[in-house]
Amino acid sequence: MIKEITARELNSRAFINEKIREIKEVVGNGMAINALSGGVDSSTVTMLGHHALGKRLKTLFIDNGIMREGEAEHVVGLFKKLGVKVEVVDAAKEFFKAFKGITDPEEKREAVTQTFYKEVFGRIVKKSGAKYLLQGTILTDVDETVAGIKRQHNVFEQLGIDPQKTFGYHIIEPLIQLRKDGVRKIGRALGLPAEVFRRIPFPGPALAARVIGEVTPERIETVRKATVVIERLLKHTGAFQYMAILHEDRVTGIRDGKRDFGQQIEIRCWESIDARIATPTRLPFKILENVADEIIRNVPGVVSVTYNIAPKPPSTIEAV
Amino acid sequence: MIKEITARELNSRAFINEKIREIKEVVGNGMAINALSGGVDSSTVTMLGHHALGKRLKTLFIDNGIMREGEAEHVVGLFKKLGVKVEVVDAAKEFFKAFKGITDPEEKREAVTQTFYKEVFGRIVKKSGAKYLLQGTILTDVDETVAGIKRQHNVFEQLGIDPQKTFGYHIIEPLIQLRKDGVRKIGRALGLPAEVFRRIPFPGPALAARVIGEVTPERIETVRKATVVIERLLKHTGAFQYMAILHEDRVTGIRDGKRDFGQQIEIRCWESIDARIATPTRLPFKILENVADEIIRNVPGVVSVTYNIAPKPPSTIEAV
Repeated sequence: MIKEITARELNSRAFINEKIREIKEVVGNGMAINALSGGVDSSTVTMLGHHALGKRLKTLFIDNGIMREGEAEHVVGLFKKLGVKVEVVDAAKEFFKAFKGITDPEEKREAVTQTFYKEVFGRIVKKSGAKYLLQGTILTDVDETVAGIKRQHNVFEQLGIDPQKTFGYHIIEPLIQLRKDGVRKIGRALGLPAEVFRRIPFPGPALAARVIGEVTPERIETVRKATVVIERLLKHTGAFQYMAILHEDRVTGIRDGKRDFGQQIEIRCWESIDARIATPTRLPFKILENVADEIIRNVPGVVSVTYNIAPKPPSTIEAV
Repeated sequence: MIKEITARELNSRAFINEKIREIKEVVGNGMAINALSGGVDSSTVTMLGHHALGKRLKTLFIDNGIMREGEAEHVVGLFKKLGVKVEVVDAAKEFFKAFKGITDPEEKREAVTQTFYKEVFGRIVKKSGAKYLLQGTILTDVDETVAGIKRQHNVFEQLGIDPQKTFGYHIIEPLIQLRKDGVRKIGRALGLPAEVFRRIPFPGPALAARVIGEVTPERIETVRKATVVIERLLKHTGAFQYMAILHEDRVTGIRDGKRDFGQQIEIRCWESIDARIATPTRLPFKILENVADEIIRNVPGVVSVTYNIAPKPPSTIEAV
């Protein structure tokens, strides 16, 4: 049983010092490695590791081909300003190979996990000689994995998997007692810029979680284009999270006066405190119509756009 | 080329008298038969045929298993008040047999056409001895069939099909020069009650057009239940048309605290004059939230509800 530390009782300075000490102690004179996605959790862990280990922490950005547009450049630039060198690894081919023929959401998450840890990261870790992996697992990930709502791609021990035996390295999870609000507090205390916190939550399986059905380079490109539109148009709503989801169902449309089967994009925009319960944002119809119009004009093949109106529960935040 | 008669230039009395005369002339001493769905077009044709032929017109309501809840009873009761006897034919099994394994929208329409005309109606016509079929085809059906936007299930000659050769009977289409507004004018002049005109448009392939993917009794029952909710809650909006569509895509949901794959219902509600162009109705969020809530509570298996926000074109009114 993991003991929760609430954001309220959290003493940032003391917590940071303790975690830096722990990481130093565990890694000793060794090398550690971590994967940075640019989200709040992995960014905070990167800063903790950087303070504890300096150059003995190797931080990688694994470009799995299912990231949002311009993601790698953005993250590398951001951490360069903080004095942290981030190495980009292009692993798109390996991920798409793993997605081939898979449509079940659970198997997709599994494909991401396996490809990430066993194939790509495992290979890099072995080459680097690092025996320690820093990970941004938080308490909500553990809860949801135990409850069977979600299979988080960064939770092992709860699933009875020994990472050292299975993947060849030891995992350090300094944020595991915190929830999102606690992580934000620590991240701020570590000097992470506001834009990291302003970023809306983004799932572990990235855009693969935004595609119903098979994940292919073409389908990811479609949902990536829709995501650019959505993030631009809904940025100023102050909503908790917003996303574009590519459906597998085809719907009829008209192009040049002729019938044309097309694709459908579903938009979700959520009001929530902690993602445990959520309601759709009451967006003005002017915005909804603009969203539909821009997606249709900017995303080839899309003839239909819908807006989610169901709450969580019984819906979930993501569709996959 | 069919010569259009606009609603404005239409002289109801003269049109009705001419069509009654034409029907009498064509059918002579024979028997005619027609299928009544309860929509404006087939209701108007039924009244024209009734005035022309009296008891020599046999009017059938083919229950194909894909009608809305209580449809047969409703239509039979309505026409009883007008002095027209309507016979209900239960053909659900034959239709569902024809739908088996079919997911393509075009093939679904074809299955309805073939089952309706060749199997069910063909058999009934042969048994009845009628050689004439009265049909409610209107000019918009012809346009859309020619343009390739839709394959209307009641347009033959435009497709190069000889109904006498193919199906064994001669087709009379008294409304073929009119559009919807013209048909409404004629229907009113023939004494059809207001509730026939207040009915929102409903497609030929009925609820089969509201199911993406395979049409099964279970899936029809799901979309039928959602349709009951939608028609009750959106009746007073004054919208041109509204509908519930069952998606084939599965999305994640939560039931009893556990992850549960569920079904998604898409709601469409349209503002339009003549269905050629249309925009989504700007429904208040209170109504949208109520719709989502009632569908989730009343339709087993549904965890997600969306609202269409794309206009026609490039979307179409129906999704299938």
